Amino acid sequence: MLGTGLIGLFYTRTLHGQRNRDRVEVVYSRSLERAEAFARENGITSVSTDIEEAIAHPDTDTVVIGLPNHLHLEALELCAAHGKAALCTKPLARNGAEAKRMLDTAEDAGIFAGYLEDLVYTPKTLKAVQAVRGGQIGQVTWARSRETHPGPHSAWFWDAEQAGGGAIVDLGCHCIEIIRSYMGKGNRPLEVMAWTDTLVHPIEAEDNAICLIRFESGAMGQFEVSWTFRGGMDLRDEVAGTEGTIWTNHFLRTGFEMFSSGEGAGYVAEKAESASGWLFPVGDEVAELGYVDMFTDMFDSLDAGGTPTETFYDGYVVNSVMDAAYASAASRQWEPVRLDDWRGGGTELITRTKREHDGRTVVKDEQMPDGRRKLILKDESTGAFSDVVV
Amino acid sequence: MLGTGLIGLFYTRTLHGQRNRDRVEVVYSRSLERAEAFARENGITSVSTDIEEAIAHPDTDTVVIGLPNHLHLEALELCAAHGKAALCTKPLARNGAEAKRMLDTAEDAGIFAGYLEDLVYTPKTLKAVQAVRGGQIGQVTWARSRETHPGPHSAWFWDAEQAGGGAIVDLGCHCIEIIRSYMGKGNRPLEVMAWTDTLVHPIEAEDNAICLIRFESGAMGQFEVSWTFRGGMDLRDEVAGTEGTIWTNHFLRTGFEMFSSGEGAGYVAEKAESASGWLFPVGDEVAELGYVDMFTDMFDSLDAGGTPTETFYDGYVVNSVMDAAYASAASRQWEPVRLDDWRGGGTELITRTKREHDGRTVVKDEQMPDGRRKLILKDESTGAFSDVVV
Amino acid sequence: MLGTGLIGLFYTRTLHGQRNRDRVEVVYSRSLERAEAFARENGITSVSTDIEEAIAHPDTDTVVIGLPNHLHLEALELCAAHGKAALCTKPLARNGAEAKRMLDTAEDAGIFAGYLEDLVYTPKTLKAVQAVRGGQIGQVTWARSRETHPGPHSAWFWDAEQAGGGAIVDLGCHCIEIIRSYMGKGNRPLEVMAWTDTLVHPIEAEDNAICLIRFESGAMGQFEVSWTFRGGMDLRDEVAGTEGTIWTNHFLRTGFEMFSSGEGAGYVAEKAESASGWLFPVGDEVAELGYVDMFTDMFDSLDAGGTPTETFYDGYVVNSVMDAAYASAASRQWEPVRLDDWRGGGTELITRTKREHDGRTVVKDEQMPDGRRKLILKDESTGAFSDVVV
Amino acid sequence: MLGTGLIGLFYTRTLHGQRNRDRVEVVYSRSLERAEAFARENGITSVSTDIEEAIAHPDTDTVVIGLPNHLHLEALELCAAHGKAALCTKPLARNGAEAKRMLDTAEDAGIFAGYLEDLVYTPKTLKAVQAVRGGQIGQVTWARSRETHPGPHSAWFWDAEQAGGGAIVDLGCHCIEIIRSYMGKGNRPLEVMAWTDTLVHPIEAEDNAICLIRFESGAMGQFEVSWTFRGGMDLRDEVAGTEGTIWTNHFLRTGFEMFSSGEGAGYVAEKAESASGWLFPVGDEVAELGYVDMFTDMFDSLDAGGTPTETFYDGYVVNSVMDAAYASAASRQWEPVRLDDWRGGGTELITRTKREHDGRTVVKDEQMPDGRRKLILKDESTGAFSDVVV
Repeated sequence: MLGTGLIGLFYTRTLHGQRNRDRVEVVYSRSLERAEAFARENGITSVSTDIEEAIAHPDTDTVVIGLPNHLHLEALELCAAHGKAALCTKPLARNGAEAKRMLDTAEDAGIFAGYLEDLVYTPKTLKAVQAVRGGQIGQVTWARSRETHPGPHSAWFWDAEQAGGGAIVDLGCHCIEIIRSYMGKGNRPLEVMAWTDTLVHPIEAEDNAICLIRFESGAMGQFEVSWTFRGGMDLRDEVAGTEGTIWTNHFLRTGFEMFSSGEGAGYVAEKAESASGWLFPVGDEVAELGYVDMFTDMFDSLDAGGTPTETFYDGYVVNSVMDAAYASAASRQWEPVRLDDWRGGGTELITRTKREHDGRTVVKDEQMPDGRRKLILKDESTGAFSDVVV
Repeated sequence: MLGTGLIGLFYTRTLHGQRNRDRVEVVYSRSLERAEAFARENGITSVSTDIEEAIAHPDTDTVVIGLPNHLHLEALELCAAHGKAALCTKPLARNGAEAKRMLDTAEDAGIFAGYLEDLVYTPKTLKAVQAVRGGQIGQVTWARSRETHPGPHSAWFWDAEQAGGGAIVDLGCHCIEIIRSYMGKGNRPLEVMAWTDTLVHPIEAEDNAICLIRFESGAMGQFEVSWTFRGGMDLRDEVAGTEGTIWTNHFLRTGFEMFSSGEGAGYVAEKAESASGWLFPVGDEVAELGYVDMFTDMFDSLDAGGTPTETFYDGYVVNSVMDAAYASAASRQWEPVRLDDWRGGGTELITRTKREHDGRTVVKDEQMPDGRRKLILKDESTGAFSDVVV
Repeated sequence: MLGTGLIGLFYTRTLHGQRNRDRVEVVYSRSLERAEAFARENGITSVSTDIEEAIAHPDTDTVVIGLPNHLHLEALELCAAHGKAALCTKPLARNGAEAKRMLDTAEDAGIFAGYLEDLVYTPKTLKAVQAVRGGQIGQVTWARSRETHPGPHSAWFWDAEQAGGGAIVDLGCHCIEIIRSYMGKGNRPLEVMAWTDTLVHPIEAEDNAICLIRFESGAMGQFEVSWTFRGGMDLRDEVAGTEGTIWTNHFLRTGFEMFSSGEGAGYVAEKAESASGWLFPVGDEVAELGYVDMFTDMFDSLDAGGTPTETFYDGYVVNSVMDAAYASAASRQWEPVRLDDWRGGGTELITRTKREHDGRTVVKDEQMPDGRRKLILKDESTGAFSDVVV
Repeated sequence: MLGTGLIGLFYTRTLHGQRNRDRVEVVYSRSLERAEAFARENGITSVSTDIEEAIAHPDTDTVVIGLPNHLHLEALELCAAHGKAALCTKPLARNGAEAKRMLDTAEDAGIFAGYLEDLVYTPKTLKAVQAVRGGQIGQVTWARSRETHPGPHSAWFWDAEQAGGGAIVDLGCHCIEIIRSYMGKGNRPLEVMAWTDTLVHPIEAEDNAICLIRFESGAMGQFEVSWTFRGGMDLRDEVAGTEGTIWTNHFLRTGFEMFSSGEGAGYVAEKAESASGWLFPVGDEVAELGYVDMFTDMFDSLDAGGTPTETFYDGYVVNSVMDAAYASAASRQWEPVRLDDWRGGGTELITRTKREHDGRTVVKDEQMPDGRRKLILKDESTGAFSDVVV
C-alpha cells in the first residue's frame, strides 16, 4: 500500500473488512511516523519510507498506488522494474500523455495493471450497467453523472500543478468512466464541450465544471463536478434510453434518514456537513462506494490470469477525455478527444425506427386524459403534421 | 379563451376550479364543433370561430392566448387594437425578433400584458425563489432545470415551422425562466452554449437538447430538455448556492406513490406512461404545475393596476436566450445573447471570500472521520498548499 | 370566523387566498385586542367579543367554528338558534355523546353543517381515495395513518379537560377519518384496540398512542399519533389492497429539499424544527393540507343545497371511535365502537378468491431468481402443501 | 450447509461471494438430485442426503442450519452430539419451548451457536443501532418494523404445522429482533397485544398481523407483517427517540430507480412483482439484506472464541414474544411475554425531564410562523395551562 491518506485508509479498510482473504502486508509513507501509525491502526506488519523498498518487499505481490497524481508514473515504473502487479488509484495520471506512458510501461513489462475506479463498481452501478447491457432501457441516448462535494481532503488536490487540474481531475474522472460504462466501452468518445470556472474558493484550479461528451452512437454524456456543493456529497447518475430510464443515488438519498436534535455526536459519513438536523448516512460506506466489488474484480482477475473491468487503458481514455475538456474550456468550442490508440472498434448511430399509419409516419401515439388515443402523423411528401384520434 | 387544445383546457379548468371568481366567458376555436364541445364541457356562454370577434366580444375583459406559437403575434395585435388585456401562453413567440414585436405592440397600445409561464409559479418554485431571495442558500452559483417527457400532445408542436423549433422551444422556455428566477432577473444572461440533436423521432426538429447559460454574476444555468424521456414527465430543478442547495421535483416524486396490479383504470396524470405497476400521480395537477398561482398573480396585478411577475419582457428575454441556443448549436461554440433592450442593470461577480490562518489563505476547513479538524492552507507568496491539523 | 388561533388564521388565509370569492366578514375573539389585530391583518370588516353577536351579524351567512373543543357545542347551538350554516373544526366534540348532541341540534334546526376535517381533503388524499373507489388497488385490507409532531400550539390542547383528551383527540381524529375514507364510509368500524401513554411531556393527557380499528369487511385500520416526534410534522398514510398499494406523504417528503448552512432565516413550515441543515418545506401549505379543497366542497355544497363530503355525522363517528380507543386503553382489550345511529348499512367480508391447479388450490404463483415459475399448492383433502415448477 | 432452498442459496452465495475466505464444503438435501445440482452450481465438493453424515463430515467445521422450522431442533441435536458449531436460520424454533430446548442443548454441549437473523445486520441497521447507542436520538420511545411481501417461496412456510404459524413466524421474527436491537437487548419485553387474520390467501395460517410490544422502559415496539402486500418486498423500520428520529428503507426505495417499457427482461430482485414500469432494484442484495455482515460477525466471533451479536438466547426471546403474540390474538387482550430465563437485567423508565419558567412547568417551547416564540406553561398547583409569548 503506497500512501496513507484518506484513499489509502479506505483501500486498507476494504481489504481488511468482512471476511476478506487479501491483506495489506507493507505500507509506504514519506513520513515514518505516519507509516507506523497507519500500520499499527490497521494491523500491517511492515512499513517503509522508501517506495522502491516497499514495492520490492518479498511480502508484496501486488502494489496499490494510492499516491498523489504526480507520483503515479514513477511508482508504476518501479512496479514494472520489479515485475509486481500494480493497482493504481484514479485518475491514472495528470493527462493523456502521462497516462499513455503508464499504459505502455505496464504493457511492456507484462505486469497485471488495474485501474482503481471505484464508482464504476458501486453495487447499484454494476446492476444498472448489467440492466443496460441486457437491453432493459433500450439504446442509451444520454447519461448524466454528477459528483459534487465541498472540496477534497488533502492539500495536493487543490494544487493544479501536482493534481493536473481541479474538480475535473478529482471528480470528473469518475463521471467519465461511469458514463462510458453506460454507453458501452466500445462507443468512442468523439468530442467534448466544457465549461470551467473558479467561483468560490481562493485557488487557481477550477472549483466548478460542466462537460458534454459526444459519443459515436450520437448519445450524449454529461457531467457536473463541483468543490462548492453544500449539504454533503452528491453522487447521482441518470441514464436515458429509448425504452427506459435509470436513476441511481449513491450517497445522500439511499433510504437511510436520521433526525438528531444534536445530542450525541460523531462522524456520519465522508463529507457530511453537520451532525444535527436531518442527516443522510449510508449503510456500509466502502461497499456503497464500490471499493469491495472493485477489489474483488481486481484480485479475482489477477488470480485467474484475466483482465479486470477497469484497466490502465480505461484510465488512458479517461485522461484523454479530460484533456479535451480542458482544451474546450480554453478554446470555448467543441474539441476532439485525441486517442491515438483506440481499441474499441466502431459503433452505429442510435436507431430511429419508423412506424406508418395510413401511409404517414407515426410521430407519437398517446393516451389523452379523457381516454381517447391520439396519433400524431407526418406526411413525408408534404412535411405536414396532423393528428388523428383512433 | 383563444384555443381549445390541452393548454386551453388546463387554463379553463384552473379558472373554473376551486372557488375562483374569474370565468371564461367566450371561447374561440377554428372549428365550431370543437368550440361548442369545449364550451359545453366547461360551462362557457359564448363561442366563436372568429378570433377578432372573440376578442372584441363585450364579455371579454382579458384575452388568454392559448394558440400555437405562430399565431401569437396576430392575436396580440388584435388585443392591442381592441384595447383588451392579453395573457399569452409560453413561449411568447417563435424567436426574439417576433417576441420584441409583441412586447412593443403591447407597450405601444398600453394594454396589460402577462406572460403565462406557469412553471415559475409552482408553489415549490415560489417558495424556493423566496428562500433564495432571503439569502438562505447564499449566492447562487448554478441552477439546473430539467424538463423531459415522451413528446408533446399536438401536431403543430412537432413542426419546426409552426413552433419555431423543437424541444427547446417547447420545454426550454420553461427552464430558462425558472433559471432566471433563481439567478435574479437583473442578472444578465450573457452567452449560451447548446447541443441539440434528433436522436429518436422521425422529425426535423431537435428531440433532445442541453444548454448552458452564463450569467453576468458568473453563475451558470443549465437545462436539459427531451421529447424521448421514458417514465412520465420529469420536471426537476436544482440550485446550488455558496451557503446551500435546493432540489425541487414537481411531478414524478412528490410524496404520492401507488402500485396497481392493473385492475381498475384511468388516466393518472398528464404524460404518465402506464396505468399499472408503480405509479407516481400528483395531487392537484393544475396547482402543482403553477396554473393557480399564475392566474392569481395575473388577475391580482390586473385588478391592482400593477405588473405581474412574468411579463412580455420576460418572454422576450427567454426567446432571445433560445435564439442564442440555436445559434450555438449551429456554430458549435458559445454565442452571445442578443438583447438590444436590456432593462436589468448590472450584477456583480459571486464573492470569493478569503479567510486567513497563520498568514496563509484557508482553502478548506474540515472534520476528518477520526474526529480531527484539518485546515488546508495556501501560501499566497509561494503558491504552495499544505494541511494542518488543529 | 369564531377564533383567532392558528386554525382561525389558516382558515382565513385559505378563504382570502388565491382568487377565492368567499370572504371572512366578521371575526370573534374573547380579546378585543386580538380580534382587532386579526381583522386588521386579514382585511376583515367587523369584530366582536360576543359570540352570539358575531353569529347573528347580518354579514354572517356561514359560521366557521374555530374554537377550543369544549366550546363547539355552545357555538353550534347559537348557530342553530340563528339559522346560520355552521362549519365546525375538528374534532367535532370531546366525545361521542357531545358530538351526537351537535349532530342532533344541527339536524333539528335544519341548518347546513359541515365538518372541517382538512386532511381528508388534501389533493393527494382526494386522488388516492378516488383511485381506491375506482378499484385500482382492489379491496382494501389495511390502512395506516400517522400524524406526529412535537406538540400542539395552544395551551388548551394540552389540558385534557378542555380538549377531551390528548394526542388522540388532537391528531387521531384526522387519522380515523382518513382511514374511513379509504375503507369506505359504509364500512362499519366495529371495535378498537388502543395503547396510550405519557412518555415525555409533563402532562396528564397521552402524548403517544397507537390504535387499531377493525372494520366490518375484515380490514384493519391503524393509526399512530404522537406529540413527541422530532424532525418536523410527519403526516403519512399507507393503504394496502388486494391489487395494490398507496403511500402518501403530506409534509416532510414532498419533492422539495433544501440545505442551508444557516445564513438567512425564517419560518419554513408549520412545526419545522430548525432553520438550517436539510429542510423539507412544502409548497403551498394550506393547499397541501387540504384547506382549499375542503372549503370548496363546503361552499359548493352549500350553494348547491347539497351535502359536503364531511358532515357532522362523520364527526360523530370519529368521536365514537375515539371513545372506544380511550375505553380500550383503560380496559386493555378490544372495545366495541358504540354507534346508536349507524347510517352506513352492511359491508361484506374481503373476498378470498380461489384458483385451482390439478385439483389443488393455488396458494402462490411466483417467478424464481433463475427464471423458473413455481406454484405453491394446497391439497384441500389432506391439508398438505407442495410446490411444483411449471 | 443443510438445505438447498432459497435461504441455503442466499447463504452460499454470500459465503462464496466477494473475496470471502469461508467456504461451503458439504451440502445436504433430502434429494440427491437437488444436492448435486446445488453443489455443481456453487462449487461445493461433497454432497449428502443424510443429515448426520453431512454434520459429521470431516470437512465440516461449522454447520449452517437452513432447514424448515420443524427440523431445526433435530439438526441442532446432531451438531451438539458431534461437537460442531451451529448457525441456525430464523426463527430459531416454532415456539418458545422448542427454542429453549435448542438453547439448552447448545449450551450443555458447549458448542458455538449463532442465530442467523440477517436483518439485524443490514448495513443501515448496524449503523442506525450504533447511532442510537451513541445517544444521537436520545431515549427510544417507539420502534416500528414492517416486513411485507406477497408471500413466501417454499411450500412448508404456508403450512402452520411445519412452520409453527404464518406471517408472524415467517416475518415477525425479523421485526422483533430489529425492535429489540433499537430498544436495547437488556430492555425486557413485558407484554404483547396482537391482531392476526387470514384476509386473502386460502390458508389457515395468518396472512396479516399487527403486534405491539411494551418494553420495561415504557417504550413501545410495533410491527406489521403481511403476505398480501403488492408492489415488491417492503422492509422499513422507523425509530422515534426523545432527541431524534430514524427511518430506514432496506428494499423498495434505496436510491435505485429504473423505468423499463418492458423490452429486455430478467429477475430484478427477490419478490419483485414485475419486470416493466418503474422498478426499484437493490444494489447488492445479500449485502443490503445483512447476510455479509452477519456471517462476518459469526465467523469472527467463532475465530476469536467470543459471542456473536445474535445468539440462540436472542432466538429464544424472539420465539417467546411470538408465543405471546399468538396468545394475545386468541385472547384479544394484552398477554405477558413468558421468559423463565431472563438474562437482561432491569431498565429504567424513559425520563420525563422538567423545565420551569416563572414557577410554572414548561410544556412546550416553540417558534410561531410570525417569528414570535411561545411557551406553553402548566401551573402545577392549579393544573391550568396557559401560553406566554416571550
